[in-house]
Amino acid sequence: MNADGSSGIGRREQKRADTRLAIQRAAVELFEEHGYDATTVDDIARRANVAPRTFFRYFPSKELTLFSEDVSERFAALVLDAPPHLPPLDALESALARLLEDAPSELDRRRQALRRTLHEQPGVTRQFAHVQDLIAERLRAAFLRRLQDGGAPRPGLTADATVAIYLGLARTLVDGDPDQRERIREWFDAVRAVLGESRAGT
Amino acid sequence: MNADGSSGIGRREQKRADTRLAIQRAAVELFEEHGYDATTVDDIARRANVAPRTFFRYFPSKELTLFSEDVSERFAALVLDAPPHLPPLDALESALARLLEDAPSELDRRRQALRRTLHEQPGVTRQFAHVQDLIAERLRAAFLRRLQDGGAPRPGLTADATVAIYLGLARTLVDGDPDQRERIREWFDAVRAVLGESRAGT
Repeated sequence: MNADGSSGIGRREQKRADTRLAIQRAAVELFEEHGYDATTVDDIARRANVAPRTFFRYFPSKELTLFSEDVSERFAALVLDAPPHLPPLDALESALARLLEDAPSELDRRRQALRRTLHEQPGVTRQFAHVQDLIAERLRAAFLRRLQDGGAPRPGLTADATVAIYLGLARTLVDGDPDQRERIREWFDAVRAVLGESRAGT
Repeated sequence: MNADGSSGIGRREQKRADTRLAIQRAAVELFEEHGYDATTVDDIARRANVAPRTFFRYFPSKELTLFSEDVSERFAALVLDAPPHLPPLDALESALARLLEDAPSELDRRRQALRRTLHEQPGVTRQFAHVQDLIAERLRAAFLRRLQDGGAPRPGLTADATVAIYLGLARTLVDGDPDQRERIREWFDAVRAVLGESRAGT
């Protein structure tokens, strides 16, 4: 793609991103106006000015409009991007801090609020678990690469342990909690406290 | 209860334990002889010489005969029993090491082998997840008490982090793997590697 994004591929990708966003925006508006249950895929497609089959090319189901699928990729990229000398825990903490610096858009905030209200919806819960699985998988691959590049012993197991620490954090975080930054800091303090002085003895 | 276990309560408890064991033994025999699917609760009750309604007083379902429900209690007791000055990770490691010293009975070994064969059975998978939930809950309570007694800051979050490390281990362990001792040692090494030298910088 050219620097000004004017190539054919760039334009096509921009158009896809615009359509995606239009669908997500239409869905959020309708969920807010009429409620989640009362809103159908046809309603969303109509409001977004696309055919229902176009909707399904972007989102396999209604609840998926409430999730942005890009976090796991960006998260893994931030892990790979962290200074190579950082041990996994510090690399994880630094990647999370940078992830939170991406200020959520107004649409993201409205979707977070809807997800909180809809956390009893099996579809939403399932999708949330699926998103966490995806993050865990990409996170593991990113740490595996860091650890292999650094010549660490047992890279696979160390990547698993890092993912376990992330998943524990994900369980304690409330989706869209405005104090997430503070929660995350406390979590890493707690993880360090778990080890206490034990390393001195090993 | 008297030291020789001869009180009324002691006798009743012994009888309950005997019945429980007889049902578990009958179930394992029948699963081995005829297969899990072909064995009914009535078959198991008949072989164990109890009424079907007695079976259900001990086990709500067929697959539960494949699990011993006492590990979580013993595990939590071992955590509380670990030297008070040990940081959570070391207390967890020490409790697990002692838990593994309890040599499995011949019946335990046969049940482990059956669980491995039946890991695709939704009932067995569900029960395994349930057992892990129970362990996580009791483990969290035990660590919470240790940390509160030790005046640690954020005891709840630190207990959560310890449980996350345990759950990560549970995901990497194969039920009944003869090399569990070695797997556990490697896991704790990996967890320490996750922190690397990061504590030096805090």
